Amino acid sequence: MRLKAVAAILAGLVMLAAQPLAAQSPDPLPSWNNGQSKQAIRAFVRKISKPGTPDFVPPAQRIATFDNDGTLWGEQPFYFQFLFAVDRIKAMAAKRPEWKEKEPFASVLRGDLKAALAGGEHAILEMIGATHTGLTTEEFEVVVRDWFATAKHPTTGKLYSEMVYKPMLELLAYLRVNSFKTYIVSGGGVEFMRVFAEKVYGIPPEQVIGSSGKQALQYRDGKPIIVKLPTVDFIDDKEGKPLAIQKAIGRRPIAAFGNSDGDLQMLQWTCDTAGPRFCLYVHHTDAAREWAYDRASSIGRLDKGLDQAKAKGWTVVDMKNDWNRVFLFEK
Amino acid sequence: MRLKAVAAILAGLVMLAAQPLAAQSPDPLPSWNNGQSKQAIRAFVRKISKPGTPDFVPPAQRIATFDNDGTLWGEQPFYFQFLFAVDRIKAMAAKRPEWKEKEPFASVLRGDLKAALAGGEHAILEMIGATHTGLTTEEFEVVVRDWFATAKHPTTGKLYSEMVYKPMLELLAYLRVNSFKTYIVSGGGVEFMRVFAEKVYGIPPEQVIGSSGKQALQYRDGKPIIVKLPTVDFIDDKEGKPLAIQKAIGRRPIAAFGNSDGDLQMLQWTCDTAGPRFCLYVHHTDAAREWAYDRASSIGRLDKGLDQAKAKGWTVVDMKNDWNRVFLFEK
Repeated sequence: MRLKAVAAILAGLVMLAAQPLAAQSPDPLPSWNNGQSKQAIRAFVRKISKPGTPDFVPPAQRIATFDNDGTLWGEQPFYFQFLFAVDRIKAMAAKRPEWKEKEPFASVLRGDLKAALAGGEHAILEMIGATHTGLTTEEFEVVVRDWFATAKHPTTGKLYSEMVYKPMLELLAYLRVNSFKTYIVSGGGVEFMRVFAEKVYGIPPEQVIGSSGKQALQYRDGKPIIVKLPTVDFIDDKEGKPLAIQKAIGRRPIAAFGNSDGDLQMLQWTCDTAGPRFCLYVHHTDAAREWAYDRASSIGRLDKGLDQAKAKGWTVVDMKNDWNRVFLFEK
Repeated sequence: MRLKAVAAILAGLVMLAAQPLAAQSPDPLPSWNNGQSKQAIRAFVRKISKPGTPDFVPPAQRIATFDNDGTLWGEQPFYFQFLFAVDRIKAMAAKRPEWKEKEPFASVLRGDLKAALAGGEHAILEMIGATHTGLTTEEFEVVVRDWFATAKHPTTGKLYSEMVYKPMLELLAYLRVNSFKTYIVSGGGVEFMRVFAEKVYGIPPEQVIGSSGKQALQYRDGKPIIVKLPTVDFIDDKEGKPLAIQKAIGRRPIAAFGNSDGDLQMLQWTCDTAGPRFCLYVHHTDAAREWAYDRASSIGRLDKGLDQAKAKGWTVVDMKNDWNRVFLFEK
């Protein structure tokens, strides 16, 4: 009986292998308009999938890395993780009466996020420290999960899980069907992203790389727990991205996707080397359906990256013209 | 055509799912004598594989972590990576004449490894620094690969790739057939182990977690490279193991395998929690075929771990009696 089952599987696989997927499937990228970006993606996947050709890449080496904020989901008017911290500060405020007098918490509680951010990096670290640390990794997971189930984006009123880009979900699925292993490599907190990445993106926790704080192993009632400490350990941005990829994955991606100068080193690490490679920038050009910003934005600034993409022939997605649908919540 | 192929695969999978694997296969662990250890392994795998029962674990959560030195391959008379450093010092000595006068290098070049180690941790760091850093990650990979192809173990005269434990190779394969994702979590250097883990153990680079040094992104002829710096970044031992697992994988293993007190925290993190769990210590009891050591050994000391394993009902492999074959090179 078992041999028969294996034979049936093998027969199916042989039939699949006999015809390239691209030739048989319905369009795997329906939210992408037919244009250069879509053509470039499909041409690359076809190129590396043909056994016996010089550009063939064995499945085990098909690593694709994706930035998250601004690449897989929105990042305006503030990074969503910052908005999580804001909601959390409000939820915790009753037990922290001193916050009414203390910045940046006082501004957050008055609803003035710009004033809270006026304190710069120090203010952000204060907010992250107060909301992301001092609890166990498992307790933090519950807090984030609860927030995700109910919190709404301040501009669209949608759940954050609906503010992911439909075309990028299709791209993730398309790459995985073609044997790519898809990773998130983001400046966001690794334990924040892991709570939703599997459900929303189909990316399991072990394929999420992000910024992280120090942690400590402790024992509670004789059982080990891991506690999140208020010290930053690693910022997964700029040169941190290739370093984190090397440490966690140990081989170069063959494809990388980003939207800002913070992703530039990851794209260079991926594409400025020999062999078939694919690099893509999402360019936020759609003020009507999303937001339009690039060289002058404090969030998701895309300046040097845009120049290098043009110079190096990387793909630049024009959201307004390349995508017929942006967010998952759109009909 | 494609639908037919998918249907054939699905039909095969349904047939497979209908019968538990264990009932149909030839023995997947032929190097294991029938006894408590083997029975405990197989009972655990069966238990977590039955859909619809309380102990069923979905495949995505079947994470198994393995120590390397002394668990998957030998570690006597010295850690194999230390012997790599020794060989490398000898190979580099012609270009480093000052080493003849400088410890620990002078002792290494005289062939007196015990004297070299008399310098303790400082001496080891000197040797690692001289042999593992100052080159790019890709250059280091070539050096290790070349060494692996030819270097022989000082006692057995065998290639290091043949000094892996055959029963553990079978165990890795058995777990993977049952949808486990197998990881190395070792005090060894992550970039050293990645060179052979895929070929020897079937574990890809991204599933190897280890100790690491600081690295830097630099540009050579305009192209990014990653250079290994002479500063230790992380030691993946003792409490470092659960912390590294949390950082790299983001969920608790359901099974963990080690051989020393350095693995104790990993086994606690895995098994001292709710749900079906499996923890196993390899106990080196075979002085004839391998080495016999435990509570008093400076390499691979197993003292507290042995006590805890007994107290907690973890499986302890008696190499002499549980394994009918030890090394891969044995006939």
